[in-house]
Amino acid sequence: MQEPFSERHGARIHAALHAAVAVATSSARCPPRLARALQYAVFPGGGRLRPQLCLAVADVCGDSDPVLADAMGVAIELVHCASLVHDDMPCFDDAATRRGRPSVHRAFGEPTALLVGDALIVLAFETLARAADGESSAMRALRLTRVLAAATGAERGIVAGQAWELEPKASLAVYHQAKTASLFEAATRGGAIAAGAGDDAAWASFGHALGAAYQVIDDIVDATGDEGAAGKPVGRDAALDRPSAVRELGLDGARLRAREQLEQAMECLPATASGDRVRAWVRGAVDPSLLRSVAA
Amino acid sequence: MQEPFSERHGARIHAALHAAVAVATSSARCPPRLARALQYAVFPGGGRLRPQLCLAVADVCGDSDPVLADAMGVAIELVHCASLVHDDMPCFDDAATRRGRPSVHRAFGEPTALLVGDALIVLAFETLARAADGESSAMRALRLTRVLAAATGAERGIVAGQAWELEPKASLAVYHQAKTASLFEAATRGGAIAAGAGDDAAWASFGHALGAAYQVIDDIVDATGDEGAAGKPVGRDAALDRPSAVRELGLDGARLRAREQLEQAMECLPATASGDRVRAWVRGAVDPSLLRSVAA
Repeated sequence: MQEPFSERHGARIHAALHAAVAVATSSARCPPRLARALQYAVFPGGGRLRPQLCLAVADVCGDSDPVLADAMGVAIELVHCASLVHDDMPCFDDAATRRGRPSVHRAFGEPTALLVGDALIVLAFETLARAADGESSAMRALRLTRVLAAATGAERGIVAGQAWELEPKASLAVYHQAKTASLFEAATRGGAIAAGAGDDAAWASFGHALGAAYQVIDDIVDATGDEGAAGKPVGRDAALDRPSAVRELGLDGARLRAREQLEQAMECLPATASGDRVRAWVRGAVDPSLLRSVAA
Repeated sequence: MQEPFSERHGARIHAALHAAVAVATSSARCPPRLARALQYAVFPGGGRLRPQLCLAVADVCGDSDPVLADAMGVAIELVHCASLVHDDMPCFDDAATRRGRPSVHRAFGEPTALLVGDALIVLAFETLARAADGESSAMRALRLTRVLAAATGAERGIVAGQAWELEPKASLAVYHQAKTASLFEAATRGGAIAAGAGDDAAWASFGHALGAAYQVIDDIVDATGDEGAAGKPVGRDAALDRPSAVRELGLDGARLRAREQLEQAMECLPATASGDRVRAWVRGAVDPSLLRSVAA
């Protein structure tokens, strides 16, 4: 039941991501090494969880402007890819691998990796601005731009999340919210706004709780997983002395926290007629891939 | 005559920049070190040439939406500051000083400098999106967003300009256009669009030629200036084996090229009633500071 729902969105996201990246890289004016590195940073990609979530919510809310919903999904994924490229750089995590192959700075060098991150952030905002067609979608596109900026920027976005790693003291909740929950929140709120739904605040709460659960699960994978399965180095939180749910709560405590937060996310789901479809999607698409380690 | 024109714009830009940066840094949720580094990267700043240019053009075109013109000037300056922070990093120019004091990565460390650049790019787009008030300015804001993205991104913006430095072969014209002229072009075109002027393409040509002249002059300063006057290390083009007008044309050839390009810029000025004011502004504000070395 859930699979076709998710697969259809996967195809939409794939096509929209290709079209967006081609805007930057298909011209002869784009420096060739940068073009190759941009493609490498975005494709083949991981689970595309955030844009899937954005399209799932847009769908439930009627998907009245699918071009804008695609653009928001793409913008969120591009910002996510940018953060991975910059996080992996030597001055941060110094990660040699990502998604099971050399990280961008290992494959293309540090200067190119720095520019790839910058270019992907720019492309994210450009993609949103290009998707607006007419005055009504212009207003929605600008709201989406503000949502994306808040989820990315220095006050409470993923940039803030990274910056908390450099502070002597950081609250785990504030750190996790900025580093992960903010972009999940933008995905669900963005899907609702793109579709013109009025209850985007409720969808934001749902995304926020889901993202918080995801980050706890990611901490568990970092503490217990193996590099082959994770596609990236593990044990980094302890090695880099970063705040982590496992460090704060212990392994069992972190598993309990993740389960609680997933339940809380489900409770946040707006009581729309077709809310069951998202519930099914979350259980179908998110649970199997994420909850294996929580249940273990 | 020109001074008050330029000073009034200087005050507008200063106030608008402070308000924009405060959006990111004044909240307790912004990590304190990142907040300090963001302020440091933007203030006190250099000549603010690009936003001055944006406001001068908006003014000549009637300045029908000054909030939007301010936002475009701010967005361009923030992107410019971001590019300086990232260019100065060890994996690029490894510059110890900027604007006469330690560069951001020397003052705050590499990880924070990386995040400052990212945050400033995000804040640039956020500032534009926040300035739109109502449907008519929403359409203008989205056009401005596309102009800013093109001037910043991987195809022909400043990111492309930096990336050409990493290619074995690069055309000097393509490199200079991406590295510098693109943002000047965005400033003049952006001023016109913010004001609702129809002749933004002509204003783009003016900015483009002005930016090309500016980059040649910057190459001359790099080859002949002293670090104290420039506020940053000089002799970098030769040390880093980068394309440069001085290397390609010799010092006299580069001076001739700069003068030709400034004349060409003046010829591009749209024949609007008050075009003389911009002409005077360019001669008054740009020439003295830039042309000293060209005339020398």
